Amino acid sequence: MCMHLRRAGHAVTVYTRTRERASELLDAGAQWADSPRSVAEQSDVVFSIVGFPRDVREVLLGSQGAVGGLRPGSVVVDMTTSNPQLAVEIEEAASMRQAFALDAPVSGGDIGAREARLSIMVGGTEIAFQAVEPLFAKIGKTIVHQGKAGAGQHTKMVNQILIAAGMVGVCESLLYAHQAGLNPELVLQSVSTGAAGSWSLTNLAPRILRGDFNPGFFVEHFVKDMGIALDECRRMQIALPGLALAHQLYVALQAQGHGRLGTQALELALASLSGITWPSANITATS
Amino acid sequence: MCMHLRRAGHAVTVYTRTRERASELLDAGAQWADSPRSVAEQSDVVFSIVGFPRDVREVLLGSQGAVGGLRPGSVVVDMTTSNPQLAVEIEEAASMRQAFALDAPVSGGDIGAREARLSIMVGGTEIAFQAVEPLFAKIGKTIVHQGKAGAGQHTKMVNQILIAAGMVGVCESLLYAHQAGLNPELVLQSVSTGAAGSWSLTNLAPRILRGDFNPGFFVEHFVKDMGIALDECRRMQIALPGLALAHQLYVALQAQGHGRLGTQALELALASLSGITWPSANITATS
Repeated sequence: MCMHLRRAGHAVTVYTRTRERASELLDAGAQWADSPRSVAEQSDVVFSIVGFPRDVREVLLGSQGAVGGLRPGSVVVDMTTSNPQLAVEIEEAASMRQAFALDAPVSGGDIGAREARLSIMVGGTEIAFQAVEPLFAKIGKTIVHQGKAGAGQHTKMVNQILIAAGMVGVCESLLYAHQAGLNPELVLQSVSTGAAGSWSLTNLAPRILRGDFNPGFFVEHFVKDMGIALDECRRMQIALPGLALAHQLYVALQAQGHGRLGTQALELALASLSGITWPSANITATS
Repeated sequence: MCMHLRRAGHAVTVYTRTRERASELLDAGAQWADSPRSVAEQSDVVFSIVGFPRDVREVLLGSQGAVGGLRPGSVVVDMTTSNPQLAVEIEEAASMRQAFALDAPVSGGDIGAREARLSIMVGGTEIAFQAVEPLFAKIGKTIVHQGKAGAGQHTKMVNQILIAAGMVGVCESLLYAHQAGLNPELVLQSVSTGAAGSWSLTNLAPRILRGDFNPGFFVEHFVKDMGIALDECRRMQIALPGLALAHQLYVALQAQGHGRLGTQALELALASLSGITWPSANITATS
């Protein structure tokens, strides 16, 4: 994502916890900084994308965090899928330095990032959104300002709730087809293009059928995302039983040692629940 | 569906429980018969499509049922979404009369039937499938022979398992968006075309948002379908917790008096579960 900005001619300063992961970017003319705070001290717009909300807190609000180095009028943009309340907290901390904050989680995966085709869901003030929009346009394709701080994260939660239910449906339906002795390729011909059709069915069912559980998106990150959504549901006082069930099934999958597989590995947890061993080509190689 | 066959020049004999519902077909030159058995006595291929498995049993295996009138070499084709075991039973009964049977449930809804764009999922012998395939081609678009008797019904169950989970995801995600104060149209812009995308999201979410719960597909028929799938799961010894949850939520929706609304009305049950009243434009008109 950062490389797209560099290639578009922007001066880029970079910090990563593992410096080698920035080597390609440094070779392309980016400057190295020793801390997130140091990045912010040299930048008009600061992007962060890390793993968990606790990492966001450290990288943005910690003693060497970016917010402490923000210049007046600058914008910090957190693209991690994280807690909507934390996004509000970051905006408040940025405003103490006369700076702005946006929450801007993405969907589209590794491929979307590489091909600059991400969907970017943005929360924060209109003025900050307009300032950063030309940069978003270099790394994403669908860029929507969803509302005030936290609205980007909330929108990403909507996305993940949809994916959670969709994966349960895909994996349960394939288990049913398997147990009924159907030919799964023929079944997909019948069901893929009608009312049962989905991105998950088209893109992940074929991988499940050949036992390919390599990660597009890690189980452990999905468990984190659903946990955030469930925390928000409790806070907002709504019960989403389907999301809660999907979360528990993924926790079980993680408990089975599969946290570093892709989300389509849910098939393994569902099969094991019924004492069935699903043919798995790539588990040893990736877990 | 029958009208497509008539328009293609086939001689059609028709029986319905409510004769007025056949009037358009009779005006187009179809012959009336007084029972399913009488239809079979005058036909090479007999199609049935009714509501519930008990109706299939009556219309095909009852004293005035079609199977009793089957001519040697003829084919009875049940297009009801029904029990896979019942499809096997029908094939056995047909074979006693030197006749054939196919189970051929469809997806695509009223519109798919009208436009001859149904997906037809067929179980039965190859010879019977080949005999009827030219007729299927007049009423459907995606026609796949899935395997022996019951395989069509099993494939339809796969389809319904996918839809069940998808509807839970769509309705839960819209409830989340509502409670988080998001603009749902903007949210759909961000999530519809990526990994969260599905037919249900594209086609039913807009109806839910405008409170349109008119039936494309009746809640009470969907409850029946999921019940069949769960019976089969118990018989085949697999646990599908997502399907079981969806079934229970739809039973609740039915208990609330909404069995004759469309499946997208699941939003009402989910909202009521959290004490939220969902704006509903058309409930009085349709339930």
